[in-house]
Amino acid sequence: MAEVLKGNAVVGQSGGPTGVINASLVGVIEEVRKHPEIENLYGAVHAVAGMVKDEFIDLGKIGTETLETVATSPSSALGSSRDKPDADYCRKIIEVFKKRNVRYFFYIGGNDSSDTLRIVNEQAHANDYDLRCIHIPKTVDNDLPINDHTPGYPSAARFVALAFAGVNEDNRALPGVYVAVVMGRHAGYLTAASALGRKFDDDGPHLVYLPERDFSVDQFVSDVKCAYDKYGRCVVAVSEGIHDKTGTPIISKLVEQVERDAHGNVQLSGTGALADQLTTLIKKRTDIKRVRGDTFGYLQRSFPGLVSENDAKEAFAVGREAVKLAVSGDIDGSVAIRRKKGKKYQVYFERVELRQVAKETRHMPDAYIKKNGCDVTPSFIQYAAPIVGKLPVVGRFKKIKVKK
Amino acid sequence: MAEVLKGNAVVGQSGGPTGVINASLVGVIEEVRKHPEIENLYGAVHAVAGMVKDEFIDLGKIGTETLETVATSPSSALGSSRDKPDADYCRKIIEVFKKRNVRYFFYIGGNDSSDTLRIVNEQAHANDYDLRCIHIPKTVDNDLPINDHTPGYPSAARFVALAFAGVNEDNRALPGVYVAVVMGRHAGYLTAASALGRKFDDDGPHLVYLPERDFSVDQFVSDVKCAYDKYGRCVVAVSEGIHDKTGTPIISKLVEQVERDAHGNVQLSGTGALADQLTTLIKKRTDIKRVRGDTFGYLQRSFPGLVSENDAKEAFAVGREAVKLAVSGDIDGSVAIRRKKGKKYQVYFERVELRQVAKETRHMPDAYIKKNGCDVTPSFIQYAAPIVGKLPVVGRFKKIKVKK
Repeated sequence: MAEVLKGNAVVGQSGGPTGVINASLVGVIEEVRKHPEIENLYGAVHAVAGMVKDEFIDLGKIGTETLETVATSPSSALGSSRDKPDADYCRKIIEVFKKRNVRYFFYIGGNDSSDTLRIVNEQAHANDYDLRCIHIPKTVDNDLPINDHTPGYPSAARFVALAFAGVNEDNRALPGVYVAVVMGRHAGYLTAASALGRKFDDDGPHLVYLPERDFSVDQFVSDVKCAYDKYGRCVVAVSEGIHDKTGTPIISKLVEQVERDAHGNVQLSGTGALADQLTTLIKKRTDIKRVRGDTFGYLQRSFPGLVSENDAKEAFAVGREAVKLAVSGDIDGSVAIRRKKGKKYQVYFERVELRQVAKETRHMPDAYIKKNGCDVTPSFIQYAAPIVGKLPVVGRFKKIKVKK
Repeated sequence: MAEVLKGNAVVGQSGGPTGVINASLVGVIEEVRKHPEIENLYGAVHAVAGMVKDEFIDLGKIGTETLETVATSPSSALGSSRDKPDADYCRKIIEVFKKRNVRYFFYIGGNDSSDTLRIVNEQAHANDYDLRCIHIPKTVDNDLPINDHTPGYPSAARFVALAFAGVNEDNRALPGVYVAVVMGRHAGYLTAASALGRKFDDDGPHLVYLPERDFSVDQFVSDVKCAYDKYGRCVVAVSEGIHDKTGTPIISKLVEQVERDAHGNVQLSGTGALADQLTTLIKKRTDIKRVRGDTFGYLQRSFPGLVSENDAKEAFAVGREAVKLAVSGDIDGSVAIRRKKGKKYQVYFERVELRQVAKETRHMPDAYIKKNGCDVTPSFIQYAAPIVGKLPVVGRFKKIKVKK
């Protein structure tokens, strides 16, 4: 029999928005309404930043219609924050929670959010304050350990796969070199998704560069030349996080001025600098005339209406699971998505410890990366295709050439 | 009674690909099959470049299934070209046409393609060679005269509208300044579409800069500061073609090295330079911390599955109309899309002279641009909304704040 803990709940959305983080939020809201022991559900405005300032939205008062549209909308409806709380910051959160009789804390985010929950949880224990802390996974980077994949990734991957299926056709129509930079500081999963739309043997991306492998500028130029000679064109997918063998980001090697955040991280998104430098490099070192670069930027994570159906369902379900878990007993943890063995794609949810998810970054396994280091393997396609969902078929004429 | 001209036909796709240029192509293919006087339909591989090299695909041999998937696929299935034929080039085209007994020439493209048709047509006349030349409009820039709008624009505009609806939410979640550069060298229609997704009073884009107005760097910085002070954030849409009052493109003022094409045009697409320079400017001249820039690049015109339904239908219809026109008598011209007067959105097609479409660029009328020069008017929204189609509703919580 579950121990009944009466009180209020707080839910927050942390870090970079995704296409389905609101689905998880609405999953939490709808499930909470079924459990009378949770009296009020407060939405933290701008995540931890709102928690320390005692800024909450009363989510009990939101009507069904709004919930439905919010659930299918991209980005974080409650607002997000890039703050990474330390022990002191977490103490302030606990103070506000005590004042508000908050007994349930649901936090949707990546490893940092899981770590925040871990600290808050430890401090609550130390204070003898009964608080259930449940982490709900989210990240387009797909870099949380234990999870088969994380909500948000499949939809962002779908965007990337479709974008490359389209620019591949654009590049076939007006041949040249096309380089696109994709999000992903440490993990290459999102960049790897560029390969999901390939159908014909000569379809791009012809080269895929991931942060899991060291990047050599010379090798890159030679790879591009080689592909261009073979196909008469070349489409390249590059992860924003590519680095040389010393770990130095390529962007900070090629670009004069880089911006760093409070944690010393180089700014990778919100600038087209890496793509521009790579295309300049190709222009300088080869005689290829048409060289173009794009940076997919924020569109990858917040494009309305462009979600993977599985992703939306799972994101919602994982929100509900978090609430079910929280009311099931004296328990904390993160809700992980696991894949069942077998041919048919099926997932189940499993509670894992907060510390198992916190701070650790998952990388792409070697089995997903081709030996040459600049493409993905069929194993990756098998892994990613069912979570990204069916892609629209891009048609092509067979070249039934008229005899001269 | 129509004069029956027996012979073969050539169809080509010119300039930048769009989301629906293949729908026009399939419109031509399907309609040609109904008219026995057109014996063979040859698709020019890479437009005029294929015509002078006598490189064609036999489009009579393409099956229905392929036609269906090609019709809904982005980019130019026949391949495109950036060549701008002069009189000599056109003479070579005529030679090939004569050899192949080509009597119908359908060319899908913008003003340049219309001009190519005009020259080819004049030379055919001068040579007493009976040739029907029909132009099928296409351009994401929406800058062809006489047309209410051009196939390709509504779908690209839909992409831009959705992208801004998404990044607006992203920017609400993690506030700062966000600048996105949109395609459009001379006409601001595509950038103006950024405003179509606005729903709430404080929704972005808060500033919209079009090539129809002179751009002042100082005014821009002051506009951004002002909007940021008002909303605590600021989303900006900028046309790649913005220029100062002397007509000098802003990109060539801010960026040290610019690439120029054979016609002396500065390279605007395929580089993130303009967005990066504008964000650097804001960082330098204001104390706003989070400033991000994106360049939508090639995704705008070639994203699979993201078309306006009207656009796809009209693009197909305009291809069919071109064929109907060509077999209706000794006639040449361009098929223009015109809008019927009245509340309900309805279009009709009208033949106009090739020279009316050739070389001239249509700009946004003053009535579509706000007096302050950095936004669109409700008249523009009324014009563009029906052609772009209904957008998915982006949901938002009412701020029912919990009392402190």
